[in-house]
Amino acid sequence: MIQEITARQIYLAERPKGLPDENTLGIRSVDIPVPGEAEMLLRTRYLSLDPYMRGRMNDTKSYAAPVGIGEVMTGQVVAEVITSDVDRFEAGDFVLAGSGWQDFAVSDGTDVLNLGKEPENPSWALGVLGMPGYTAYAGLLKIGEPQAGETVVVAAASGPVGATVGQIAKIKGCKIVGIAGGEDKCRHVVDHLGFDACIDHKSEDFAEQLKQHCPDGIDIYFENVGGKVLYAVLPLLNPFARMPVCGVVSWYNLTGLPDGPDFGPAIMGTILRMKVKVQGFIIYDSFGKDTYKAFTRDMTDWLGSGKIRYKEQIVEGLENAPAALNDVLLGNSFGKVVVKVG
Amino acid sequence: MIQEITARQIYLAERPKGLPDENTLGIRSVDIPVPGEAEMLLRTRYLSLDPYMRGRMNDTKSYAAPVGIGEVMTGQVVAEVITSDVDRFEAGDFVLAGSGWQDFAVSDGTDVLNLGKEPENPSWALGVLGMPGYTAYAGLLKIGEPQAGETVVVAAASGPVGATVGQIAKIKGCKIVGIAGGEDKCRHVVDHLGFDACIDHKSEDFAEQLKQHCPDGIDIYFENVGGKVLYAVLPLLNPFARMPVCGVVSWYNLTGLPDGPDFGPAIMGTILRMKVKVQGFIIYDSFGKDTYKAFTRDMTDWLGSGKIRYKEQIVEGLENAPAALNDVLLGNSFGKVVVKVG
Repeated sequence: MIQEITARQIYLAERPKGLPDENTLGIRSVDIPVPGEAEMLLRTRYLSLDPYMRGRMNDTKSYAAPVGIGEVMTGQVVAEVITSDVDRFEAGDFVLAGSGWQDFAVSDGTDVLNLGKEPENPSWALGVLGMPGYTAYAGLLKIGEPQAGETVVVAAASGPVGATVGQIAKIKGCKIVGIAGGEDKCRHVVDHLGFDACIDHKSEDFAEQLKQHCPDGIDIYFENVGGKVLYAVLPLLNPFARMPVCGVVSWYNLTGLPDGPDFGPAIMGTILRMKVKVQGFIIYDSFGKDTYKAFTRDMTDWLGSGKIRYKEQIVEGLENAPAALNDVLLGNSFGKVVVKVG
Repeated sequence: MIQEITARQIYLAERPKGLPDENTLGIRSVDIPVPGEAEMLLRTRYLSLDPYMRGRMNDTKSYAAPVGIGEVMTGQVVAEVITSDVDRFEAGDFVLAGSGWQDFAVSDGTDVLNLGKEPENPSWALGVLGMPGYTAYAGLLKIGEPQAGETVVVAAASGPVGATVGQIAKIKGCKIVGIAGGEDKCRHVVDHLGFDACIDHKSEDFAEQLKQHCPDGIDIYFENVGGKVLYAVLPLLNPFARMPVCGVVSWYNLTGLPDGPDFGPAIMGTILRMKVKVQGFIIYDSFGKDTYKAFTRDMTDWLGSGKIRYKEQIVEGLENAPAALNDVLLGNSFGKVVVKVG
C-alpha cells in the first residue's frame, strides 16, 4: 500500500473585515512542486502563527506587501529538505524558511537558514530563537535601553514576545510587571517566568491595579497590544520613558477608527510632557547584523542556563491553522503557537 | 516733577477651563522690590509669550511645576540690571532671566544669562537666539536628523519655532513644506523665509493640498500643533520617519478628551507600520551643553549671513500681555510675540 501524500496550500480567499472568518482563508490540494536546477524541495514541519499575519491580509500601505487574493498565506516555517540541488543544503537538513501556509515548497535557498540535521528543538527557531525572541531582545535592549531598577511593563506577557521581554528585563535588573488575560496566564507569568507581578486585563479594576503595581511609575512600556492597556499606561509614564512598538494586536481587526473619545491628545500630550520616545520597529529591517549575532549568542546562553523559559502551544494539522490564528488574535492562545504540519 | 514708576505683576488668579479668559490672570501694583546682599534688581524690558505658558496654568503632572494661584505668571524676559551686588552683573547690563510677567524682579543671578550692555537686538534672546530657536535647532537636528533630499513638514510655520525649523531644514538640503493660518502668513513663509511651499490649514482641502505638496511622502514632521494637522500628516509618513514633538498647541485649551473617532489606532498603527520614531523633548533638559554651544554658534552665523530670517511682533505694554497670549494660542499672532515692558 502506498501512502498518499497530499500537498495542501492555505490561501487568502478574500480580505476580511474585522476578525477573519470562514470565507477569509481557503484550502486547496495541489501537486507536490518539482524543484528545478539549483533548487530544493522543502516539506513543512512547523508553521509559525503570529499576530502580524492579520496585517498582511489588509490591502494597506505597510512595511510589507499584502498577500494577494489567491496567494498562499505568508508565514515562517521550519521545514525539512527532501531533495536539494542547492549548495549548503542537503536532504535531511532542517531549515527556517518563509514559505508560508503549505505542505511543500520549492526554494533556491534565498533567505533560508540551515538549522542542521535533527536540531534539538526545531520549532524554537520560530519562537524564542527566532522572530518573536529577536523582537523582544532588540526592541527592549536597543530602543527600550533598560537600566537596573527601572519599571518595565509588557502586555501579552504569556506570549512569546512578552514573556521574553519580561525575562530579559529581569536579567537586566528591572522590575517587570506583566499583563495577561486570565488567572492561569498570570500565575504562569509570575510563578514560572519570574515576573514581579502580572495583572489580568479582564479585571474590572485593571487600570487601578496597574497603578498599584507601578508605584514608581513606568520607565519602559513595550507596546504590543494598544487599546485600553496603552491608555492605562499613559498616565503612569515617567519622564524620558521609552516605548518600543512592535504591535497593536488589540486593534488589528478594526474596520475603521473606533468611536471616541479621541485619545490622540492624551497620547501626544504625554509624549510631549514626559519627553517619551515612542519608536516602531520591524525586526527584519530595524537592526543590524551585530544585534542579531548578539541575540543568538545571548539567547542561547540564557536558554541553556535556565534564565529564560519558553512555552509553546502546538496545534496539530495545517487545516487547523486558521482557527488557531484567530485564537492568537483574540488572546485565547497560551504561549507561542506553532502548527505541526505533515 | 518726579515720574512715578509703577511696579506691576500679572498673576494667575484662577485656573482656566479651555482658553484663558478675563478671570484667569489678574494685575496688581506692588512696591518695587528691594534687593538684599548678593542680589540685583532687574527691570523687565521684554517679556516672551509662548504657547507652553498655557500648560503652566493647569494643575497637571508635567515637566514643570504649575504656576500656583496668586503667583506671578512664569515667563522668560530680557531685563536691564538697575542695581547689582552680584558678581558678573552690573547696572546697565541686559540679561535673560526667568522672572515672569512683572515690571521688576530681584535675582541672585542663578540661571540668569548676561547679554552685555546695549546688545544689538536684545529681544532676540527670547526668540531665534533663545528658547524657540534652540527648540527648532535641537529638535530638528538631534531628533529629526534631516538628510539632504528629505521632505520636512512643520506647522505654525510663520511662528518662531516653525520658521526656524524650516530655514534650518533648507540649509540642510531638505524640501520644506510649511503649514500656516491664512494667505498672508503663507506668502511670508514662501517668499520671505524660502520654504518650498506653505499650505493654509484653513483651506477646506487642506489634507489634499498637503498630499499634493509631498509627492515623495514625509520624512520628518516637526510636531508643534497636534490636531488635524497631525492627522493629515499620518498617512503620508515614510518608513523610518521621525517626529520631534515640542508642542501640541491646538490641544492646549482642551478641557477633556475630544469626541471621537479615536485616532489612537491611527497614531500607533502608523508608528508601527512605518517604523516611526516619535520623541517628545523639553529644550531645557533634553540636550547637553555641546548642543547649546553649537546652536549659539550656528545660529549667530546664519543670522549674520542672512540664511535665517526672523520676524517679531512687538506688543506694547505689560497690561496687554494676557490678550496677546490668547492670540498666540489661537494662531492670531504673526511671528515671535514679545511684550515691550516699561
